[in-house]
Amino acid sequence: MARIVQKFGGTSVGSIERIRHVAGRVKAEVDRGNEVAVVVSAMAGETDRLVGLCQSMAPFHDAREFDSIVSTGEQVSTGLLAMALQDMGVPARSWLGWQIPVETDEVHGRARIVAIAPDELRRRLADGEVAVVAGFQGLTPRNRIATLGRGGSDTSAVALAAALAADRCDIYTDVDGVYTADPRIVRAARKLAKVTYEEMLEMASLGAKVLQTRSVELAMKQRVRVQVLSSFSGAPGTYVVDEDEIVEQEIVSGIAYSRDEAKITVLEVPDRPGIAAAVFGPLADHEINVDMIVQNVSEDGRATDMTFTVTRGDLDRAVGLLEDRRSALGFRALVPDADVVKVSVIGVGMRSHAGVAKRMFSALSENGINIQVISTSEIKISVLVAEKYLELAVRALHTAYGLDADG
Amino acid sequence: MARIVQKFGGTSVGSIERIRHVAGRVKAEVDRGNEVAVVVSAMAGETDRLVGLCQSMAPFHDAREFDSIVSTGEQVSTGLLAMALQDMGVPARSWLGWQIPVETDEVHGRARIVAIAPDELRRRLADGEVAVVAGFQGLTPRNRIATLGRGGSDTSAVALAAALAADRCDIYTDVDGVYTADPRIVRAARKLAKVTYEEMLEMASLGAKVLQTRSVELAMKQRVRVQVLSSFSGAPGTYVVDEDEIVEQEIVSGIAYSRDEAKITVLEVPDRPGIAAAVFGPLADHEINVDMIVQNVSEDGRATDMTFTVTRGDLDRAVGLLEDRRSALGFRALVPDADVVKVSVIGVGMRSHAGVAKRMFSALSENGINIQVISTSEIKISVLVAEKYLELAVRALHTAYGLDADG
Repeated sequence: MARIVQKFGGTSVGSIERIRHVAGRVKAEVDRGNEVAVVVSAMAGETDRLVGLCQSMAPFHDAREFDSIVSTGEQVSTGLLAMALQDMGVPARSWLGWQIPVETDEVHGRARIVAIAPDELRRRLADGEVAVVAGFQGLTPRNRIATLGRGGSDTSAVALAAALAADRCDIYTDVDGVYTADPRIVRAARKLAKVTYEEMLEMASLGAKVLQTRSVELAMKQRVRVQVLSSFSGAPGTYVVDEDEIVEQEIVSGIAYSRDEAKITVLEVPDRPGIAAAVFGPLADHEINVDMIVQNVSEDGRATDMTFTVTRGDLDRAVGLLEDRRSALGFRALVPDADVVKVSVIGVGMRSHAGVAKRMFSALSENGINIQVISTSEIKISVLVAEKYLELAVRALHTAYGLDADG
Repeated sequence: MARIVQKFGGTSVGSIERIRHVAGRVKAEVDRGNEVAVVVSAMAGETDRLVGLCQSMAPFHDAREFDSIVSTGEQVSTGLLAMALQDMGVPARSWLGWQIPVETDEVHGRARIVAIAPDELRRRLADGEVAVVAGFQGLTPRNRIATLGRGGSDTSAVALAAALAADRCDIYTDVDGVYTADPRIVRAARKLAKVTYEEMLEMASLGAKVLQTRSVELAMKQRVRVQVLSSFSGAPGTYVVDEDEIVEQEIVSGIAYSRDEAKITVLEVPDRPGIAAAVFGPLADHEINVDMIVQNVSEDGRATDMTFTVTRGDLDRAVGLLEDRRSALGFRALVPDADVVKVSVIGVGMRSHAGVAKRMFSALSENGINIQVISTSEIKISVLVAEKYLELAVRALHTAYGLDADG
């Protein structure tokens, strides 16, 4: 007997038929003698519809009202899944964030889970009742509904698994696991049986859309065993686990990429103390995240060029903010460039292996790909390249690190 | 300064534009210096959509899950109205049933309100904040959402007005008041300035769809001054008030009708004690309401004919239940007839006036309308007639009781 948390995303519960299919997956775990709690997202398209209603009512609306409205998506899907389970003879009931409660902070729209009261749920799970829990939502100290932000249902599932001390948290998605690279780009990509929390975290933040970054952070912190698998195929997926569980660690586990990158070069900015703060301060104040940063060593000690990246959606705003401050900052010109992508190699094995970066640079160079910006961490190396090289770069690196599947 | 509860139905909040229009009506009351709580229904069509989802998931579904799903309609409309008010500079927030809480019993799908905690709402109203309250929903002692049944938002509004000791409960609908008869049938129908609770109750239960019966019962019991008015016209509506408030009481206030009637005649049923219970017991067990009943005096003391009415939707089921028991009941035959309507004259003035029934029977007779069944109460007389006479009967009675507008 195991205690399992399952999570199904919006596509998996996108219609009455699909919700029935999900109920079948839940029932299969119940029939194996397991205790099951299920976290569901809103039916595909429903959250967008509700967000659209809010935006047409008022572009600048109260985040508390927004949360109350948008959380109805999960309220509907949990009720329908509970009905589907009951219809199959499986005892089940739905749980909304405020009913458990899932306690959050008051940052409406992107709240963090503070605590989940586990006692009542554990008692009912032990009685053989499936708990169908609304993802993405919780209750603030002021008794109002808060949502966790897009993709928050993954975080709900991991937090629930931690609170229930579940043996496993199965995240069902439209892919059947974590691959060494995007299979749409690299035909020789392989599904990984296991990946470490750290690697998954880098993959999530570097563009692999399998799991929400926050959910991986939480899983790592709470040591929740997560499995990513497909709600359609039924095949075993990828386990996201502690490093200790992986006996033979590859040097590089996967190649990730992100198209959501844009580069800004600030030409001839005065090379004086505090200039970085002066450039990046206004961006931070407007919640624009700056990712990769390169500053050239200035030749004469007076002016230098700075290059950094932001998401494409933030590019125009970032340029505008800096142009507004041109005279104060004293730079000569800005060169924006949205025609770039970020390609990353990731692996905890890098820590103990030399030459990983060299192999990356060689592989790219051999394919005539110019590296514009580099950034590294303990377990990843990212480079910025022109967008046209995306597929070529990912494939070349996949081969260079020996990740291609046999045959 | 007055404290006012306003209620807007689904048509009034059927689109973003209409919700803005409602916000304007609310703001007008606020600008007059009044404290305002607003009860809203789901956007028109939304409840049907949600009910449809439940029915396609499982024809026999858990009423608790149904309530959790269907209550989201009001959760969305309250949030949107609060946003619209805020956008106009009016402080406002939405309140869901569980947040206030609106305490109900556990009869999911048609729950009754037990209590509404007024303190927090009253404090905020006094601070100038508009309370936008989700109609149709409450919280059971087991911490689950319960809905009040179709049209329950009227009841929510009246109960809230009672709990807040409001000066008035304005029910905005798609008609601009209560008329002496359906204006679509009687061109000379007049809008009533005032109508008594008792009359409104009879009108509601006799087919006038202006207010839900339960809401009128509650208003009468709690002495809540209700005004029925149009959310589109802005004209004063009809007040539903205590009899004392109406100085010059007409004998008859209005003519109501219902097409949702069907007649069953049981031929030659043994005239023995307990036969009525034997006939009507099985119907009651299956929640079929029997309305008008006539039993002929038997000539020989052995067999008699019984006639009674049910709603058209229950006709086939009622006939089936009785046919199943034909040998036990010992009747000769059943004659079902769905081609009937009920026409009623209503007025508290009847209590103190003789000859009201005689005038009704004369007017119908003069127009060649045969009366099939009669039933009376202290303040109404109802007759069953063939459906083809509906308009003629209503118009004839409207004229006979002097209700036609001048000119």
